[in-house]
Amino acid sequence: MIVAMQELATEEQIDSIIEKLVEAGVNVHRTTGATQTILAAVGPTSTLDIEEYKLLAGVLSVHRISSPYKLAGRAFRPEGTIIEFNNGVKIGGDEIPIMAGPCSIESREQIFLVAQQVKEAGACFLRGGAFKPRSSPYAFQGMGIPGLKLMREAADAFGLLAISEVMEIAQIEPMLPYIDCFQVGARNMQNFNLLRELGKVRKPVLLKRGIAATIEELLLSSEYILAGGNYDVILCERGIRTYETYTRNTMDISAIPVIKKLSHLPIVGDPSHGTGRRDMVPAMARASVAAGADGIIVEVHPNPDKAVSDGAQTLFPDQFTKLVGELRLIAQAVGRSVYANAPATTNV
Amino acid sequence: MIVAMQELATEEQIDSIIEKLVEAGVNVHRTTGATQTILAAVGPTSTLDIEEYKLLAGVLSVHRISSPYKLAGRAFRPEGTIIEFNNGVKIGGDEIPIMAGPCSIESREQIFLVAQQVKEAGACFLRGGAFKPRSSPYAFQGMGIPGLKLMREAADAFGLLAISEVMEIAQIEPMLPYIDCFQVGARNMQNFNLLRELGKVRKPVLLKRGIAATIEELLLSSEYILAGGNYDVILCERGIRTYETYTRNTMDISAIPVIKKLSHLPIVGDPSHGTGRRDMVPAMARASVAAGADGIIVEVHPNPDKAVSDGAQTLFPDQFTKLVGELRLIAQAVGRSVYANAPATTNV
Amino acid sequence: MIVAMQELATEEQIDSIIEKLVEAGVNVHRTTGATQTILAAVGPTSTLDIEEYKLLAGVLSVHRISSPYKLAGRAFRPEGTIIEFNNGVKIGGDEIPIMAGPCSIESREQIFLVAQQVKEAGACFLRGGAFKPRSSPYAFQGMGIPGLKLMREAADAFGLLAISEVMEIAQIEPMLPYIDCFQVGARNMQNFNLLRELGKVRKPVLLKRGIAATIEELLLSSEYILAGGNYDVILCERGIRTYETYTRNTMDISAIPVIKKLSHLPIVGDPSHGTGRRDMVPAMARASVAAGADGIIVEVHPNPDKAVSDGAQTLFPDQFTKLVGELRLIAQAVGRSVYANAPATTNV
Amino acid sequence: MIVAMQELATEEQIDSIIEKLVEAGVNVHRTTGATQTILAAVGPTSTLDIEEYKLLAGVLSVHRISSPYKLAGRAFRPEGTIIEFNNGVKIGGDEIPIMAGPCSIESREQIFLVAQQVKEAGACFLRGGAFKPRSSPYAFQGMGIPGLKLMREAADAFGLLAISEVMEIAQIEPMLPYIDCFQVGARNMQNFNLLRELGKVRKPVLLKRGIAATIEELLLSSEYILAGGNYDVILCERGIRTYETYTRNTMDISAIPVIKKLSHLPIVGDPSHGTGRRDMVPAMARASVAAGADGIIVEVHPNPDKAVSDGAQTLFPDQFTKLVGELRLIAQAVGRSVYANAPATTNV
Repeated sequence: MIVAMQELATEEQIDSIIEKLVEAGVNVHRTTGATQTILAAVGPTSTLDIEEYKLLAGVLSVHRISSPYKLAGRAFRPEGTIIEFNNGVKIGGDEIPIMAGPCSIESREQIFLVAQQVKEAGACFLRGGAFKPRSSPYAFQGMGIPGLKLMREAADAFGLLAISEVMEIAQIEPMLPYIDCFQVGARNMQNFNLLRELGKVRKPVLLKRGIAATIEELLLSSEYILAGGNYDVILCERGIRTYETYTRNTMDISAIPVIKKLSHLPIVGDPSHGTGRRDMVPAMARASVAAGADGIIVEVHPNPDKAVSDGAQTLFPDQFTKLVGELRLIAQAVGRSVYANAPATTNV
Repeated sequence: MIVAMQELATEEQIDSIIEKLVEAGVNVHRTTGATQTILAAVGPTSTLDIEEYKLLAGVLSVHRISSPYKLAGRAFRPEGTIIEFNNGVKIGGDEIPIMAGPCSIESREQIFLVAQQVKEAGACFLRGGAFKPRSSPYAFQGMGIPGLKLMREAADAFGLLAISEVMEIAQIEPMLPYIDCFQVGARNMQNFNLLRELGKVRKPVLLKRGIAATIEELLLSSEYILAGGNYDVILCERGIRTYETYTRNTMDISAIPVIKKLSHLPIVGDPSHGTGRRDMVPAMARASVAAGADGIIVEVHPNPDKAVSDGAQTLFPDQFTKLVGELRLIAQAVGRSVYANAPATTNV
Repeated sequence: MIVAMQELATEEQIDSIIEKLVEAGVNVHRTTGATQTILAAVGPTSTLDIEEYKLLAGVLSVHRISSPYKLAGRAFRPEGTIIEFNNGVKIGGDEIPIMAGPCSIESREQIFLVAQQVKEAGACFLRGGAFKPRSSPYAFQGMGIPGLKLMREAADAFGLLAISEVMEIAQIEPMLPYIDCFQVGARNMQNFNLLRELGKVRKPVLLKRGIAATIEELLLSSEYILAGGNYDVILCERGIRTYETYTRNTMDISAIPVIKKLSHLPIVGDPSHGTGRRDMVPAMARASVAAGADGIIVEVHPNPDKAVSDGAQTLFPDQFTKLVGELRLIAQAVGRSVYANAPATTNV
Repeated sequence: MIVAMQELATEEQIDSIIEKLVEAGVNVHRTTGATQTILAAVGPTSTLDIEEYKLLAGVLSVHRISSPYKLAGRAFRPEGTIIEFNNGVKIGGDEIPIMAGPCSIESREQIFLVAQQVKEAGACFLRGGAFKPRSSPYAFQGMGIPGLKLMREAADAFGLLAISEVMEIAQIEPMLPYIDCFQVGARNMQNFNLLRELGKVRKPVLLKRGIAATIEELLLSSEYILAGGNYDVILCERGIRTYETYTRNTMDISAIPVIKKLSHLPIVGDPSHGTGRRDMVPAMARASVAAGADGIIVEVHPNPDKAVSDGAQTLFPDQFTKLVGELRLIAQAVGRSVYANAPATTNV
């Protein structure tokens, strides 16, 4: 940690800060310039409260100089993390898996139909929500575990992996038999209790960036899961809130290359939530892959107009098929490929 | 709901939308202008997905024209809601209660000392966290229920009401005996399952605005609690995330008069989280009251430098005493008052 | 314009608004629902102040239902605008031109060297600033017209078109002989006097999105130029300000497909300003083309470490060469191409 | 400037950075920690490009530790700046002047009427726009210099000072005879050429914060004027762009105490632009004064419904009279006063 003193800081002020730092158990190196004194605190500074030091008399600014996350940092695994699922599908390598399916699981008929459709189009994962966090108390709240059972059957029938959102700790255990990957939604990105519990699980977790979260905060949240010993974390960019209102969120495509640089974890793009508009999904899915995304998660429904939730951002099956074709070309252009023919999944 | 057609929209496109609306069970009034056709959908439109209609062929724009919240709206109780606590302290009326205390309950000694200090300065509520959502997995996570017991004792000893944050459904029941008011933090503003459960409780709930939530979303979240039959909801402005980094958040003071206009619920200002800096707390507390806040919640600690969390935004006791004096003057200037001498609280 | 009345609005309030609208010269269609009355104002509503109506007694909300821009709208030229330059290079068609060069023109040697480098790599345009808006009063302010003369010579020597930023009206006339395209920077996006003057010029204008401008505001600004009779406007996404600080701005890639939908004007991506970091430029340039950009503008310098401005976001020549190769592949993947070999430019 | 190296940085990387810094003419102090090396660069670092250093091999982060502004900093004049106008009215001291008037000067009748009204209510300054930057090319663009003449006459007739917006350099000279204070609008906050010219003028300048400007950028912009020798700069908070849409902008009240801390310059609140809604203006004006504002600038019109611009955010004269009364009480509550009876102005 660096404490930069004001030009007019007195010797007493400087001494008082040195003393406080030494008391906190860190070593202090002092650089006295012609106009300004700088204190470098070296040692166990992670417990120091930067904001507190900013308010001390004579202080101009305080800077953290060590990364606040360790396990999620690129330095921890410079070669990058590749996560392998039961059926051999990997994420983080050269081959890019596509995750697709409806916002909500609605019925056996619906989930089987969409599973068939996305499988034929080239998806590796079937996504579908069983527990729905809805902003209106009067809206459909999801089928729960019975829905997950249907999704598992559909995934198995068509050789797909299953991914679904977990909203609270109590759901983890019941979900385990039915899914291949947990998904943590944007609203739960800082639900640290939930993250800690997922750190104890031995299934991959896809962690979505919060709607107002910085990239650093996303990485810090992933640290909770990693710290528990679960190293199979997939990050996901799904749009952040800005002043622009034409799209529901502003999808921060630059988060993709930034995360590839800062972290070893795979990063996936979610253009459905990233834009909230079906007509913008293909362009943003292509942009994600072009920017280096390790996967794409996208909402598809046999009949989006009849979907119980998120219909406006959900692709029609034929749009999805067309999109996968486009993504194959883009992936090729960046020296990668979209999974050609996903291998059959085995039951979990 | 209004659907504005593009100038070049064809009759078929218009008919197709009318048909879709009628199928959905609403009545459609058509206005055919010289250059543009407008469709007004009247009836049960709350279940219609605006975003879906925006994407239909020939549509220029779609507008919701009924308020998405009902129970939280000012029209529901034009005279405003006044919530009365066990000891007679009210919020929402002319008298303004101050809520103060440490970020975290740390020990019997600490909580009793701060209770005495804030009581003497003029607070009505003792605040203190027992469950702490921390962004680093390595930080202090709170004393839990034993901490709440200490807070209850301290509150009773000094005639204060007790308010503390609830983070998950499982905590509601155990917390009930120890607190007078639940607090829902910014990160949980859209934890709808939690809100629904709090709707069944018969204790007031202070609901904080999410860090990226609009005022409308805050009101919609309060609707979850109200819909359950718990009408004692207090809203709280605690800063939103913007591009400005000097303060931790940007406290949206204008949310206070806006909420007074749109809703009947009391609204409280939280300048500690609103700014993240102790040196900005007094000015923003004054601004809140000047703008019409019904209460103030502020962090105070016997020794902020030693606080286990949020020390930088926490006032020293003498700063708090001075602030309450300033708030009394500001309250007077707007025709209100800060509680002169809070009545003794009785055990819950 | 639609005026939605509150549920409790009185007949007098409704009548008063109808009267005000009729006085303003528009026709009013009234829809009386069971709970709510809706007024549709049809006619010359563009001069009505929506904000004013929102404040009238009994009004719930007011919505504009006609597009605020006309000439920039897609409906004005559904087939899209293709701008052709003197040497036959086009923008807006299937072939994508690359614009490249230093932030500032620094010397004859520098601009000739970079011109040769970007030409060899495949650029069609040489960009370079002669007038620099710098946030510090002590920084380099640009070479002015003598710099533009050097750029013109360099552009001609290597068969490139020249583009440079105009900062005020007084610069338009002197710049005319030396450039093929004016550039309006983000800070001047709402300098309406400047835009109006550029509407009278018969040279293309590249208009950058303001750092806090919505897409609608960008289109409205372009309307100023179009309204003057200059239809050769190129739009440019160059990043918006959000709370994320890792990148200097957040490049809103989704603005590219949105603008392709809303407008007929070509849209170009500027990943240098969009990210402010050289290491993120290639990924964001690729994402731009994948999302449908009609061109790319990027900063290149023979030695970015020695550049007088913006060095950190400026590519080394060999990085640029590599990037153009990548963009060729991405363009192909979306059914387009990057100009294979830009034709020689003729003097203006 | 501090350069924090990555944990894995090699000695060559460290040496290469030290060399680069020394070449740039600064002294380097090296602190070698157990896991991390820190370089402190001392000397003329203001010309170093922080962003450039961030990209060098082995670098974790780079921090500027000296303030980027000098003349605007509080340290330059710890006692604060008080600006005195011709008629003895001061800003920056204990007495708070109110500036009021229409958005646009429309006619002799209008400006005289409003001058009388705001004077009687207690204003010291008459504000009014003669050059209007409008986002639509079809809207009213202002009366120009003839309007300013009318405003001068009205101001003199009622003993008021005159303030009006300057939009470009060419307007400075012609405006000089008619106004007591230049106003620079939010859109021109980074029009550095204009600021530089205003640095040469010997009249006070009120500089508004840009809609997406940080507080630091506002102070840096003021530095342009101060550097030219014009020390009479008044800063103005007028709302920033956030994701909240209920108010036109989000007025950042916390900028007021922050600027009081960081700078010696007076700071004024503009609740009209800060909210864009007449019904929110009084609450936000009160909040501004409660937070420490040195003045208030507010839009008032004899008949806002008929105003040619900004009617929705403009107060009726009786609302303004009531507001001044409220502000007197708030000012008192914070130990200050609103000018009781502005002294008569003399011609400039």
